[in-house]
This record gives sequence, C-alpha cells and structure tokens, in this order.
Amino acid sequence: MLEQKGNLFILSGPSGVGKGTVLDALLKDYNDICYSISTTTREPRKGEVDGEDYFFASEDEFKSLVKKDEFLEWAKVHNNYYGTPKKYVDKTLEAGQDVILEIDIQGAKQVRDKFDGGIFIFLAPPSLKELESRINKRGTETKDAIATRLENANKELEEKKNYDYLVVNDQVEDAIKKIEAIIIAERCRL
Amino acid sequence: MLEQKGNLFILSGPSGVGKGTVLDALLKDYNDICYSISTTTREPRKGEVDGEDYFFASEDEFKSLVKKDEFLEWAKVHNNYYGTPKKYVDKTLEAGQDVILEIDIQGAKQVRDKFDGGIFIFLAPPSLKELESRINKRGTETKDAIATRLENANKELEEKKNYDYLVVNDQVEDAIKKIEAIIIAERCRL
Repeated sequence: MLEQKGNLFILSGPSGVGKGTVLDALLKDYNDICYSISTTTREPRKGEVDGEDYFFASEDEFKSLVKKDEFLEWAKVHNNYYGTPKKYVDKTLEAGQDVILEIDIQGAKQVRDKFDGGIFIFLAPPSLKELESRINKRGTETKDAIATRLENANKELEEKKNYDYLVVNDQVEDAIKKIEAIIIAERCRL
Repeated sequence: MLEQKGNLFILSGPSGVGKGTVLDALLKDYNDICYSISTTTREPRKGEVDGEDYFFASEDEFKSLVKKDEFLEWAKVHNNYYGTPKKYVDKTLEAGQDVILEIDIQGAKQVRDKFDGGIFIFLAPPSLKELESRINKRGTETKDAIATRLENANKELEEKKNYDYLVVNDQVEDAIKKIEAIIIAERCRL
C-alpha cells in the first residue's frame, strides 16, 4: 500500500471551553499525532526551544511571512503575533503523519479557506451556563469581560454548523476518547 | 438535547474475511450497539429462541414478507431464506439505539438501495494471499470451490469504493478497535 498522506485535524470551539486542557491530555495519552508548532513574535520563555516549542520570529519576519502567505492562519494576541506555518504542516502531512491544530473559531475559519480536506472538530461546552461557570472559576476577568465573552461564545456556537464533528466537553476523559475515535475513524475513511 | 436517532452500520466484505469473528468479538467487548435479528426459514436449533436468536418463519410467510418489501436485504443460502427485517431495524433506530448488520457484499448493495444514511464498513483481508490461506485453513472446501471463492473475492474487493470506511482485518483486536472508533466518531458527526 502506498504511504498515505496524514490528516489535518482542527480542534476549535468557543474561548473558555477547555481546548487547551483537552489537547494536552490527548497528546499525553496518544502519541500518534503531531501538534503543530506555531510561529510567534513573543519572547522565548526560559527553557523554550526554537523549532520545538515555537518558531520564534521578529515582528518584521512575521509580517513578511504573512505577506508571502506562509500561514494557514495567524492572529495578533496581546501585542504578539502567532501563526500556523503552512510549510511545516504540509511537510508533516506529506510524511504520512497526522497533525492537530488547536485554534480559536476565527483561526479555524482561515484554515478552512486555505486548506482543502481538513477535519474540523468543534469542542462545545455542555451549556452556556457551564461555560460561564468555568470562566468565573478562572477568576481572572471582570464582570464586563465575562459578559462580552459569553456573548461572543453564543455567536461562536452558531459556527458549529461548519464543522465535521461535535464533541461536547462534559468530562475531559470522554472528550478525549471521542477525539481519539475521530482520528482513528478518519484514517479508515475511503 | 433531543433524543438522537440511532445509526445503522453495515459490516460487509468478501466471504472468508472474518466478518463473523470480528462482529462476535466486537459485541462481546462493546455493548452499546445492537445486532439486528434476522428472519429465517431454517429450523430452530436446540436452545434458539424466536425473537431473540432469529425470527423464525415458514417459507410462505417469508415470501409474503419479501412481496410486502419488509426486508432491508434477503438471500437464499443452502435452501433456506435469511432476511433483515426493516421494521425491527427502524424501531430500534427510532429508539436512539445504533444497529449493526453483518452481511455479504450482495446484501450490502440491497441495503444501500433501500436505506438512506447507512454507514458502510468494508472489512478487507490484508491481501488475497492471506484470504486464500484463511479459507484453506478451514479445510472444508474443494480446490475448485476455493478458486471460485477467490475469484469472487477479487471482484468483491472492487466494491470497496462504494463504502464509507475500510478496515483491514489484520489483527482482530485492531479491527475491533477501528470499528468501535468508527461507531463513536459517527455519533459525533454533524
């Protein structure tokens, strides 16, 4: 059998739904998929290795990469730029390795425009009430900020119609099991 | 959330590939799916219960059910009729329960014509050589019968293009894991 190209999985969902937690747990449990390394303009933290944790770039370099359309998606967050390098993802997929991106709804939209055949997984909260309680538990935001975030989440939930799979993040273990199943099943797809 | 209708999975593949073995092992391991009960005209064996192992019917009754289009698929095997009763499958799916059928390629074709939205899984041998060795191991058939069977298998392998998923039955445990993953993933499909 010919070496099969890898699949690109996009894990997205409203802010606060637990994408990071779920992905970290998934990657710990399941090492047959590759997490895409992002390019960023933020300063390396202690112990972070270029090409392992991130591809570190200056703002000029980053903007030049944007101009050359070198990102599957990118965004500016808190004065730093973050992007998913197209070449790195392509190279990994060509080698037959599956890749998973964990990005917000806007990023997922960009990937949908730029990449054919991505598999989009929407991670949803059990309910908006539950999302509110999760964001409150973080205790890092003002009431106004929380209200805005929930309003956005409500809008973002409508986006799920553009996704291939819906995974409700009720119990993290369940969500991981479902995402693993989606990865295995997609490899069997004809 | 509204109760979701169950999914109908069709496990098929060339004769001798191990559909029965895989399904038996799957159902032992995984009790969240229902194996469809067939209608048959063959005599009940000792201990078999009507409505549990099979729905037993006379040949006249069976033929009348065929006329009324009451089967998703049916076939005559060794002078006995076997069929998958449409009503039983529909009722089970309506109750939100997934159903799996284990049928040959011809039966799967019939189901494709009669049922919308079935999920078709093609169970394939690792190779035709492997299939030959499996059939030989059974030791129940003449050389000519085996040759015919392999010729048919070759034709049947071409059928896989009409299926949603391909599972290679190399190791039974792997095949089961993949089918389980397909069932879980399909429940998350949007």
